[in-house]
Amino acid sequence: MTYCVALKLERGLVFAADTRTNAGIDNISTFSKLHSWEQDGERVMVLLSAGNLAITQAIISQLEQHQRSDNLDSATIFNVQSMFQAARVVGDAVRQVYAIDGKALEARGESFTASLIFGGQIKGESPRLFHIYAEGNFIEATDDTAFFQIGEHKYGKPILDRVARADMRLGEAAKLLLVSFDSTLRSNLSVGMPVDLLAYQADNLRITRKKRIEQDDEYFKDLSDGWSVALREAFDNLPELEI
Amino acid sequence: MTYCVALKLERGLVFAADTRTNAGIDNISTFSKLHSWEQDGERVMVLLSAGNLAITQAIISQLEQHQRSDNLDSATIFNVQSMFQAARVVGDAVRQVYAIDGKALEARGESFTASLIFGGQIKGESPRLFHIYAEGNFIEATDDTAFFQIGEHKYGKPILDRVARADMRLGEAAKLLLVSFDSTLRSNLSVGMPVDLLAYQADNLRITRKKRIEQDDEYFKDLSDGWSVALREAFDNLPELEI
Repeated sequence: MTYCVALKLERGLVFAADTRTNAGIDNISTFSKLHSWEQDGERVMVLLSAGNLAITQAIISQLEQHQRSDNLDSATIFNVQSMFQAARVVGDAVRQVYAIDGKALEARGESFTASLIFGGQIKGESPRLFHIYAEGNFIEATDDTAFFQIGEHKYGKPILDRVARADMRLGEAAKLLLVSFDSTLRSNLSVGMPVDLLAYQADNLRITRKKRIEQDDEYFKDLSDGWSVALREAFDNLPELEI
Repeated sequence: MTYCVALKLERGLVFAADTRTNAGIDNISTFSKLHSWEQDGERVMVLLSAGNLAITQAIISQLEQHQRSDNLDSATIFNVQSMFQAARVVGDAVRQVYAIDGKALEARGESFTASLIFGGQIKGESPRLFHIYAEGNFIEATDDTAFFQIGEHKYGKPILDRVARADMRLGEAAKLLLVSFDSTLRSNLSVGMPVDLLAYQADNLRITRKKRIEQDDEYFKDLSDGWSVALREAFDNLPELEI
């Protein structure tokens, strides 16, 4: 499995993705599930992917192939004028990969699984964040629901439900995503370190804050230990049930 | 869905179950998923059930029918001499219901879903706790893994993973199960109040501490609010990521 989460804030966007992939439980590898593209001062886009790795890699290759193509007529994530149009391009790439691989997968009893979080900013717009489905359609984050999760999302959802707020600082939001990851990593073996993090500051239109958190990362260890201690203390301080 | 959880402690056993059942999202009812039986001073047994309500009710009726039968030759949960044998009786009841209903369900594309937590004590033994599967086989809780969850278990697992300890007091463990429920209730609509709680003190051999926590229960409201505040404080006190 996979765990990816992204948060839309007043100050920008924050993305995090684990890197574990597995075919069965005894064939585990590390693949980045966070991809980003930028045209300095013009546009920044980030894609988080969950599902069948062959499918999600094909989608990304499809998107990047456009960049090298000379066909200026077709819409690509590098030439569209809004994030909505860019999300359409990503959705179209999902449908193209389905057209190529879907039938063969279904014939073998495998389902076409792909779930994407896509966000970023194009000059002239505010940052936007989308959740794109295997069918190629998508929804957009609003003030009511400012975060999206894909993959193994349940363990890390309670803390997001309680703490996520649109007015958080980027570093604070990055901390929140890592706490959400910590809960998931402890409870589910199919999600694994390292974790890729990207914090995008609104109107910056370039990627300056991207980090891979390794297993032995000092900050993450302190965060994880500190959170455990704080949770136990918080729990001890609650009144006991008289039953 | 459903959320049920039970914890085996040095001091006894604690069980909790929600009461929401649904057929589709617009047909919601309240059914107890916590069933208990006692023979005063002789045996106490508790069963938590998740899955298809028709199946789990049939299993319970099957177990109770034994009580009224005069056939003293057959093993029932009321005449066996160990909790292991009792778990076998429950597993057999699951298999009998499968024999009756399984084919018709599968013919309509419905799967035979039933997942049970079964625990208690028979005089002469220590309290024991089992997780019984839809196939009728089961596993037992040990010191290494002292809790079982069934149904919508992921949201409430991180806090159990961090806080559950075999030397907890019963009231402390009941508090833990309610915190685990609170996370689940907030994040998943298919799990609903009221929550049934039962705390069994080892060697008591009678049920004295059983409680239904209603939506407007003062203790639960304070616990839920207190936990939210404590979590946010704990989160705020952790160092921010410099990214």
